[in-house]
Amino acid sequence: MPSETRQWILNKKPVDLPILTGDDETVTFKLTTAPLPKPTASQVLLKAFWLSNDPAQRTWIARDAVPGRMYMPPISEGSPMGAHALSEVLESGDPARLPVGSVVLAKSDWCEFSVQEITACQPITPLPGVRLSHFLGAFGFTGLTAYYGITEVVNATAEDTVVVSGAAGATGSMVVQIAKKLLGCKRVIGIAGSEEKCRWVEKLGADVCVNYRAPTFEQDLIRATPDFVEVYYDNVGGNILDFMLTRMKRHGRIAACGTIANYNNHSNPIGLKNFFEVISNRIHIHGFIVLDYIHKAAETMGVLVQAWQDGKIIVDDSLETVVEAKFEEIPQVWMKLFEGSNTGKLTTKLI
Amino acid sequence: MPSETRQWILNKKPVDLPILTGDDETVTFKLTTAPLPKPTASQVLLKAFWLSNDPAQRTWIARDAVPGRMYMPPISEGSPMGAHALSEVLESGDPARLPVGSVVLAKSDWCEFSVQEITACQPITPLPGVRLSHFLGAFGFTGLTAYYGITEVVNATAEDTVVVSGAAGATGSMVVQIAKKLLGCKRVIGIAGSEEKCRWVEKLGADVCVNYRAPTFEQDLIRATPDFVEVYYDNVGGNILDFMLTRMKRHGRIAACGTIANYNNHSNPIGLKNFFEVISNRIHIHGFIVLDYIHKAAETMGVLVQAWQDGKIIVDDSLETVVEAKFEEIPQVWMKLFEGSNTGKLTTKLI
Repeated sequence: MPSETRQWILNKKPVDLPILTGDDETVTFKLTTAPLPKPTASQVLLKAFWLSNDPAQRTWIARDAVPGRMYMPPISEGSPMGAHALSEVLESGDPARLPVGSVVLAKSDWCEFSVQEITACQPITPLPGVRLSHFLGAFGFTGLTAYYGITEVVNATAEDTVVVSGAAGATGSMVVQIAKKLLGCKRVIGIAGSEEKCRWVEKLGADVCVNYRAPTFEQDLIRATPDFVEVYYDNVGGNILDFMLTRMKRHGRIAACGTIANYNNHSNPIGLKNFFEVISNRIHIHGFIVLDYIHKAAETMGVLVQAWQDGKIIVDDSLETVVEAKFEEIPQVWMKLFEGSNTGKLTTKLI
Repeated sequence: MPSETRQWILNKKPVDLPILTGDDETVTFKLTTAPLPKPTASQVLLKAFWLSNDPAQRTWIARDAVPGRMYMPPISEGSPMGAHALSEVLESGDPARLPVGSVVLAKSDWCEFSVQEITACQPITPLPGVRLSHFLGAFGFTGLTAYYGITEVVNATAEDTVVVSGAAGATGSMVVQIAKKLLGCKRVIGIAGSEEKCRWVEKLGADVCVNYRAPTFEQDLIRATPDFVEVYYDNVGGNILDFMLTRMKRHGRIAACGTIANYNNHSNPIGLKNFFEVISNRIHIHGFIVLDYIHKAAETMGVLVQAWQDGKIIVDDSLETVVEAKFEEIPQVWMKLFEGSNTGKLTTKLI
């Protein structure tokens, strides 16, 4: 059994884009080695083999994050970079509760090995025909985030036309499917970052998907929303949210899920300038975090798996971008999130 | 009876601050004369004598206002500038319904005389001891706006700590009183533009009022909200709203009533940059317009008048700034709104 682990620690909180090379004063992450404690009777020793890459991780290392204002404690400099991962149990303090060789989802951080409380590990039971990594995405926090945002937060119904930004991303691709195929929303309009992504989002069920990188984006979105929309599921914030304020129907509802447009933009964040629309059109904006609904997670996961088994939603290889990488390459893969190079969920399979 | 009227028309929609002097190409308003039709059997001829000055009027003349996105049709160039006023009935098509000599509240615009439908006129029954102009403020749309925003929109209760911006203004001064004295909110914190205004807001019932023009404003507001706040009633938007996002408690509610910070700032509006707070702290933002609740207006007015009669809320001369002015001076008086020179409601008494 290993007595130490390689780990990526947060060396210096970034202001804007994380910096991957440089000296101790500037580089964001640093590869180090740390000793591993022996698991107690309530713990297991894990080996991570598949990492979840999430835009939210960027907010955990924000330079000015105030602990009480975050939904979890910010990561301090010198601590391992936070991440959820699928891991194998190498050693168990209580094999009856969690046997050696089983697979768990846990917040294992960017550590090769880690010791975790058994209660903090979610055992994964593989589904035939489903790649394990979907438990990081469609059948994981991402699927839950999509589900609660579109149901609990804005309560979308068959009466509603829905716009989803980041529609080709991990959460957006599930929102599109849930809105169209489970809730039967009248019309679902995606926003994504390339023509290719847009066509894929339409395959998932969107009535139409608009490319925000096209020079005609605003006109395209206006054309796609001639009667305005009741619901906007916002994964991106920034200019797209600002423009969408002008496309909301009176009393429209916005689920605010992420502001990736500003995560790497601390020194000059994009501000919302069309706020008067919120007043003149009585818009409701509701921010949310998946953790608020976590007590219903098992039940909801059942709903999503059933929907997949019934052929209502697609959960296949198209729904994720898997990057095989060495432990040394973890930060580079994670940062692909901010280049928009992934379609669906971006995961790192450690080799 | 007059066969024509003096009127201020919208000459050129302003980009930023309205321009009061200049040529036809630039000047915002122009004093003209227009013929008056003879009132029909369903109409009255009115003479305006007391004008309501409202920040919202600035939004009615915004350069880029899209008709369907506004809560009322934007005013077109060449049309009279919109305004609510108290007027006397000079001639009535139906004296049994609305007698000559009675006083009405109507959208009489910046016109000396106007012909209005009787159904569009709200007859005013004077209250002993109450200056008539309070029917433009505390006992008018302003009081209603304050009431619905703090009750219906964010449903403030005795459990809540409430922050109110523009607290020395027409709406804010009523919000402070309703929140503290009618709803019994736990703590009410005002934000206003001078030390003198702040002390007055505290006299109205605020536990404390913070001067946003002080160099220590942000620290002062942090000190005034050590446990953060459940409710924010926003009359101003811009930087104050942006900062308040960082002072909201988890699941906090914001009533979005006005964004005066940007009304004269079209070419470079102040953007909201702290939007991530909406997500991380699950903030709810609800925009609203008093007109949505107008079917309850009579009942609510009864509540406010009763509260005043019971000595619970103050509705006296301190609650408004009355400017006596000639018809020619209407635009200048209105623009005092944007200098912050008024305490309470700003009204123009025509001389």
